[in-house]
Amino acid sequence: KFRLEFLDLHSYDQATFFLSLEEEQRVTLYHFLSPEEMATVFENVEQPEDNYQDVMAEMTPEYAASMLANMYVDDAVDVLNELDKDQVASYLTIMDKESATEIKELLHYEEYTAGSIMTTEFIAISSNQTVKSAMAILKREAPDAETIYYIYVVDEVERLVGVISLRDLIISDDDTMIAEVMSDRVVSVSVGEDQEEVARKMRDYNFLAMPVVDFQDHLLGIITVDDIVDVIDEEASDDYSKLAGVSDVDTLDYNPITSAKKRLPWLIILLFLGMMTASLIGRFESTLDQVPVLAAFIPLIAGMAGNTGTQALAVAVRGIAKGEMAQQSIIKILGRELGTGLITGSSSGIVATIMIYLWKGDFYVALLVGFSIFISLIIATLAGAVIPLLMHKVKIDPAVASGPFITTINDIISTLIYFGFATLFLSYFL
Amino acid sequence: KFRLEFLDLHSYDQATFFLSLEEEQRVTLYHFLSPEEMATVFENVEQPEDNYQDVMAEMTPEYAASMLANMYVDDAVDVLNELDKDQVASYLTIMDKESATEIKELLHYEEYTAGSIMTTEFIAISSNQTVKSAMAILKREAPDAETIYYIYVVDEVERLVGVISLRDLIISDDDTMIAEVMSDRVVSVSVGEDQEEVARKMRDYNFLAMPVVDFQDHLLGIITVDDIVDVIDEEASDDYSKLAGVSDVDTLDYNPITSAKKRLPWLIILLFLGMMTASLIGRFESTLDQVPVLAAFIPLIAGMAGNTGTQALAVAVRGIAKGEMAQQSIIKILGRELGTGLITGSSSGIVATIMIYLWKGDFYVALLVGFSIFISLIIATLAGAVIPLLMHKVKIDPAVASGPFITTINDIISTLIYFGFATLFLSYFL
Ligand SMILES: [Mg+2]
Ligand SMILES: [Mg+2]
Ligand SMILES: [Mg+2]
Ligand SMILES: [Mg+2]
Ligand SMILES: [Mg+2]
Ligand SMILES: [Mg+2]
Ligand SMILES: [Mg+2]
Ligand SMILES: [Mg+2]
Ligand SMILES: [Mg+2]
Ligand SMILES: [Mg+2]
Ligand SMILES: [Mg+2]
Ligand SMILES: [Mg+2]
Ligand SMILES: [Mg+2]
Repeated sequence: KFRLEFLDLHSYDQATFFLSLEEEQRVTLYHFLSPEEMATVFENVEQPEDNYQDVMAEMTPEYAASMLANMYVDDAVDVLNELDKDQVASYLTIMDKESATEIKELLHYEEYTAGSIMTTEFIAISSNQTVKSAMAILKREAPDAETIYYIYVVDEVERLVGVISLRDLIISDDDTMIAEVMSDRVVSVSVGEDQEEVARKMRDYNFLAMPVVDFQDHLLGIITVDDIVDVIDEEASDDYSKLAGVSDVDTLDYNPITSAKKRLPWLIILLFLGMMTASLIGRFESTLDQVPVLAAFIPLIAGMAGNTGTQALAVAVRGIAKGEMAQQSIIKILGRELGTGLITGSSSGIVATIMIYLWKGDFYVALLVGFSIFISLIIATLAGAVIPLLMHKVKIDPAVASGPFITTINDIISTLIYFGFATLFLSYFL
Repeated sequence: KFRLEFLDLHSYDQATFFLSLEEEQRVTLYHFLSPEEMATVFENVEQPEDNYQDVMAEMTPEYAASMLANMYVDDAVDVLNELDKDQVASYLTIMDKESATEIKELLHYEEYTAGSIMTTEFIAISSNQTVKSAMAILKREAPDAETIYYIYVVDEVERLVGVISLRDLIISDDDTMIAEVMSDRVVSVSVGEDQEEVARKMRDYNFLAMPVVDFQDHLLGIITVDDIVDVIDEEASDDYSKLAGVSDVDTLDYNPITSAKKRLPWLIILLFLGMMTASLIGRFESTLDQVPVLAAFIPLIAGMAGNTGTQALAVAVRGIAKGEMAQQSIIKILGRELGTGLITGSSSGIVATIMIYLWKGDFYVALLVGFSIFISLIIATLAGAVIPLLMHKVKIDPAVASGPFITTINDIISTLIYFGFATLFLSYFL
């Protein structure tokens, strides 16, 4: 009874239920379910669990190997990538040859490439046959294919030459030749392409699956839209984490210790950068001694410069991610950011000058703060945009230029500008 | 020749080409292409353009109305939502009745709800028929349906009772009854549901389309995965923009003025908040006068507190977006963040104390800074997590608690803590 009840659930709900179980309950479940049925559950456990290793160890090796063989090969590979090499090797030895070969093929692709998220379970046919015979192939291969909604057409040497959707197949006459109804302008991605670029193409072309080819256009696999949805989610969360200076913003099982581990690295780096700012201000001690009111505006100037930098950074990072920056010259982007900095800097500077003058009645201090904001905002805007762009051009991960880094760099720059001007025009404040 | 060349392109490439044209060239294109062909182009212009209004005005009203009638109804509604009411009304009058009715139905749903992104062009059948007759319906309705890969099953009063995929239909025997092969556990969303929640379900269940129902389970429409991909993209960009304090981080046509407009509002708010910090520090003028070295550490403490707050904010916002926070009590989350703050605060505080003592040799100043960091980080962590959570609970958009806001609040809090302790223990520093 329980078994039928469970199998009646949607596979995602089965996975959710499975994840909520304790070890003994899971072991009981393995007895109730066949490896084929368990395969469906595991295909839907999307979050890579830290304890995959342990969960797999609860099953007999034969059960585990059979389950893996029955999973869609891309999902099986995702699970195997979380285990150690010995365990992987032992499962592959017990498994049927065909599944093992299929899995091995996919195991060696680099993370974050098209190859790492594709599956080899697609339907490919040749073009010199009728719609009717293509439908027969499709029905035969349906149980093993990830999607049957796109059928790919290949030539004698497995090169991708066309694609036809099941929709077009169904509304075509039985006797039409595939060559006539297929589309021969196939959009594909190469196997080494970045998964983010694949996601971008999928979003633009509204495909349900994207074919993956090698440099000679041989069809190697397909990437389905459900996996692209996960990629988009992951990449967005990744960019978001970097802007906040947390190593990974998505946590399921969090407790204070794992939480702190994800946040401390940046805080310690900030501490060191903050010490630099402190020693910098220390050098202007005599200026500060003579005009103590200057201290009050440090957080204002540093805060505004820091935020301007983050704004420019965010725009640049999204631009890079969307591929827009690639088409524009650094000079042009610099020009635009300079313009933006001039506008935001002058507006904020003027408002600050007026406010401080009305409040303190000291025109020179007001002017100093306003002018420092003006210059700081221009430089902070440029820094926020240029640093990630330069990193991107020289192929360094712009991740290093994350939010807190840019903010603190701009703290330092703006403090230097503020006290620099104060010292230069010291006579006016005395 | 040009016409055939153009129509041979994928519809997304047609749209990209269209967007690159000047006005006269677009007008020429309208003469080359039928309204049906132009409809396909417009379906793929995903970015809502500021100048839809102008582009539509280039067409004759008859051409425009016919194009809109030929578009998938959800895409037509997206275009109409960008035009003024008069223009919309005039197009709907010229248009064929059926299309106009379909469009009007969808026009009144609120933005960001399931209703606003659904389409009514789905295939629904009754359960008391054979697979064969269902296939016949499907072939007949295919040209007008957004997807034919899911067929929804409804009862006599249009209530959603089942779903069957074309895949299952194709591998079933011709004479099987639909009631036998359909799945009667249908996952659906209600028409008023937030689009972000719809996206979450679609991601979890790996659907290609999600049925939308009213409160009595009547099937109103479907949402296809390509539109969900756009929703995920938009929502991610929205969260990212808020963390950076930019009103909209994605800009296509940007020039310095539009750019500055998106960034200035937060900068001006920061300016006011910064003035509060300044006046706060002003109140501690006598403390500063007596121990001028204190000024040097203001950016360090404020910077660290600001960033800790952003980290906690980012984790909380993602947690809210993913629906995880809803299941947890505020008390539990508070407890966890307090724990995290204690760990990050004590680690950073101890490191700071040691560094400053080694550098300045002044134990009391070192201890003051370290202790202020300790307390500030705890409070900043709590503030970063609690403010968006409370806003969410009382149904205020946590957007107000964006990155720069939390940062500046924490600047103020940390400055207060730092100078508060300094004043309290002033005698030790003299
Ligand atoms: Mg297999
Ligand atoms: Mg993988
Ligand atoms: Mg799209
Ligand atoms: Mg998957
Ligand atoms: Mg998959
Ligand atoms: Mg990325
Ligand atoms: Mg229509
Ligand atoms: Mg819409
Ligand atoms: Mg999924
Ligand atoms: Mg769309
Ligand atoms: Mg659509
Ligand atoms: Mg949102
Ligand atoms: Mg700051």
